[in-house]
Amino acid sequence: MTARTLQGFMELLPQEQIVMEQMKAVIRHTYELFGFAPLDTPVLELAEVLLSKSGGDTEKQIYEFKKGDTDLAMRFDLTVPLAKYVALYNNDLTFPFKRYQIGKVYRGERPQKGRFREFYQCDIDVIDRDELNIVYDAEVLAVIYTIFNKLGLPPFKIYLNNRKLLSGFLTHLGIQDKTVDVLRLVDKIKKIPEEAFLGELKELGLPEDSNRRLLEFIKIKGNNSEIIKQLETLSVTDENFVTGLDELKTVLAQAANLGMPESNVQIDLSITRGLDYYTGTVYETFFDDYLEFGSVCSGGRYDNLSSVFMDKKFPGVGISIGLTRLFDQLRGKGLLKIGGPTPNKALIVMQNPEYQNAAVKLAGSLRQNGIAADVMFRDCKFKKKMEYANKIKVPYLVIIGEDEVAQGDFTLKNMETGEQKRLDLNDLIAEIKG
Amino acid sequence: MTARTLQGFMELLPQEQIVMEQMKAVIRHTYELFGFAPLDTPVLELAEVLLSKSGGDTEKQIYEFKKGDTDLAMRFDLTVPLAKYVALYNNDLTFPFKRYQIGKVYRGERPQKGRFREFYQCDIDVIDRDELNIVYDAEVLAVIYTIFNKLGLPPFKIYLNNRKLLSGFLTHLGIQDKTVDVLRLVDKIKKIPEEAFLGELKELGLPEDSNRRLLEFIKIKGNNSEIIKQLETLSVTDENFVTGLDELKTVLAQAANLGMPESNVQIDLSITRGLDYYTGTVYETFFDDYLEFGSVCSGGRYDNLSSVFMDKKFPGVGISIGLTRLFDQLRGKGLLKIGGPTPNKALIVMQNPEYQNAAVKLAGSLRQNGIAADVMFRDCKFKKKMEYANKIKVPYLVIIGEDEVAQGDFTLKNMETGEQKRLDLNDLIAEIKG
Repeated sequence: MTARTLQGFMELLPQEQIVMEQMKAVIRHTYELFGFAPLDTPVLELAEVLLSKSGGDTEKQIYEFKKGDTDLAMRFDLTVPLAKYVALYNNDLTFPFKRYQIGKVYRGERPQKGRFREFYQCDIDVIDRDELNIVYDAEVLAVIYTIFNKLGLPPFKIYLNNRKLLSGFLTHLGIQDKTVDVLRLVDKIKKIPEEAFLGELKELGLPEDSNRRLLEFIKIKGNNSEIIKQLETLSVTDENFVTGLDELKTVLAQAANLGMPESNVQIDLSITRGLDYYTGTVYETFFDDYLEFGSVCSGGRYDNLSSVFMDKKFPGVGISIGLTRLFDQLRGKGLLKIGGPTPNKALIVMQNPEYQNAAVKLAGSLRQNGIAADVMFRDCKFKKKMEYANKIKVPYLVIIGEDEVAQGDFTLKNMETGEQKRLDLNDLIAEIKG
Repeated sequence: MTARTLQGFMELLPQEQIVMEQMKAVIRHTYELFGFAPLDTPVLELAEVLLSKSGGDTEKQIYEFKKGDTDLAMRFDLTVPLAKYVALYNNDLTFPFKRYQIGKVYRGERPQKGRFREFYQCDIDVIDRDELNIVYDAEVLAVIYTIFNKLGLPPFKIYLNNRKLLSGFLTHLGIQDKTVDVLRLVDKIKKIPEEAFLGELKELGLPEDSNRRLLEFIKIKGNNSEIIKQLETLSVTDENFVTGLDELKTVLAQAANLGMPESNVQIDLSITRGLDYYTGTVYETFFDDYLEFGSVCSGGRYDNLSSVFMDKKFPGVGISIGLTRLFDQLRGKGLLKIGGPTPNKALIVMQNPEYQNAAVKLAGSLRQNGIAADVMFRDCKFKKKMEYANKIKVPYLVIIGEDEVAQGDFTLKNMETGEQKRLDLNDLIAEIKG
């Protein structure tokens, strides 16, 4: 039997996995810092529940199968399970309901570079009954900023828009009947030449004049206050537009109140997010120098999360980080610090297996003091033990030899500087704890 | 469409999920404290890879299906994926290889109380090439102790044995040909009467005298040193027995060196673990007052992890905690502190929506100081806001009213004591941080 892993399924070596877990921990802690509670829904659901809303492409990619008489499917995102969860438990939940979920989802796409069939999504959503205050949209924006800032990654910007602006502007132009088509087209504007864009609008049967004004609109450039000013001078009176502009201003103002720097958020009127269900604020996140990664964190505001399952209205705002793909892209560009030393960790080695008792006692003491400790019990040459220390990337080596056992102390070697010190147990613990 | 969750799939409310995540965090941190590195293998594998070793019952329970031309299966444990991983990447791994994995596994069992079709296993294994030092068996024992001690659960004991003792004793009795059958039978001793046990041995064609001596052997009682002494006085010279006794003594001595109290470990010569592949040390863990839970953490030493995939020999020692079932059992007995306050968290409420800017700025400051903060932006009666605070179980409420805005300070309410204080920002942060 040949050991093999399925194509499109990420499997990491330990040094890489440690970095992946560190990224997950930053995301999880930030979500909790913003008051989100954990949620964990099953990977398997009834197929009819998962497929209740989706169509076409998603359905083809789904891992769906029968067990006994039951049609089962593996979740392809964390949003449909959330919609189910809120519908199912809404009487037991406290609203506004702020949850995060970090879990694997499954899409049987044709395998290709950078596409995974099993990948982590890291989602947050704030859900309320009937109405959800707009300030939550600023909170979610600040969550994205805080995470990417803490991850210590290259410069990034969060691009912000409000779909009400564009749909209001279409009403203003009198072409609101084609809103869905136009929004989908606008979403592609960065990928196709302007002439092609105008051509496709024309094919929709829209008048040339409004098409040119639409193109001018989505191309409005400047810093955020300049864009806001230009939007105001358009004097559009459509109610949707007015609300959208107001919401956009509130989101920016409150994001600033939350301490988020202006330089990390940029209004971009061309961002619509293809999905139908976004109705207000939309976000996309790009690395300034790696636009080719695409958006690494996206989301937005929607009016009704669980409409497939129930009549009650649950508006929400949320985002998703596609962590597996992000990890893969960053690794590909050498932007991850893979193989760095594990902080707060020591490897204990003995110069002679006779000192095993001393080594074991020391391991116990270090761990009781919150220091991760590993003992090399394998009886091999000292050189081999050093190789092991270098490979598992411990910042500290503790050496137990004849002298140390006689004196009742230890030799601590800082693996980065090479410096060695003889220390008693208390000083050893203090030194490693820094 | 009715929102439903599949039977046998655990789905928790937020207050329960928080406790589950706390348990996972204790397990993860303890594994890391003992020097184990994280691993994350796919949930889906090639069916032939997963089923390479299993038979009968396991196979029936497996979620197996076809996607295109490929036979896929969902993992039913974390051991077979580890065997595959070690076989696949052994040239890139550093041995001894110490990994932990916390992940969901799938078994399509007939749903019944306390049985889950999707459940968490929390595994550690230490794997080496050719030979693995016996002290690792003591390390693993100390990991079990540390986790259950830190979880703050009812009194528990880890029952320890070494399969070499029993198989050596069978050789000593001259009935070694039936070792596998006898080990399986011994594993049942706690569930059947002695007479039935002797009867089944007789059915195997074993002589009455050796059967009685076997029964006496597995019933040897006393504290650990008393049992060791009795084993020594048996004067069994079989090599396996001698090695097993020596290993058992080493494991106990080194566990004591690691700081583990004697009272939490108990030799039990009747423990064999049914699985064929254990070859030395075996562990089971029981709550003293809830024996009916069964073993909540089991494992042991094996000679060859990846034999299905390759010729190289990889001995190891490992354990698994079935977390989902454990959580369910503890919850059922009211032994979990569900609904306790989330530490280090504040809810900010305003007496008037006009104070929103102050509330948002405060939230930003608290979070920048590592305090989880949630703002109630919904404009509702103060009573409703208090209800929300009580429901999401925050230990602190920060109230922003007219006075506070005028003075530039805040009212902090300790939700447990009911005590209220007016504090400026710095004192507020200091107070919440404790």
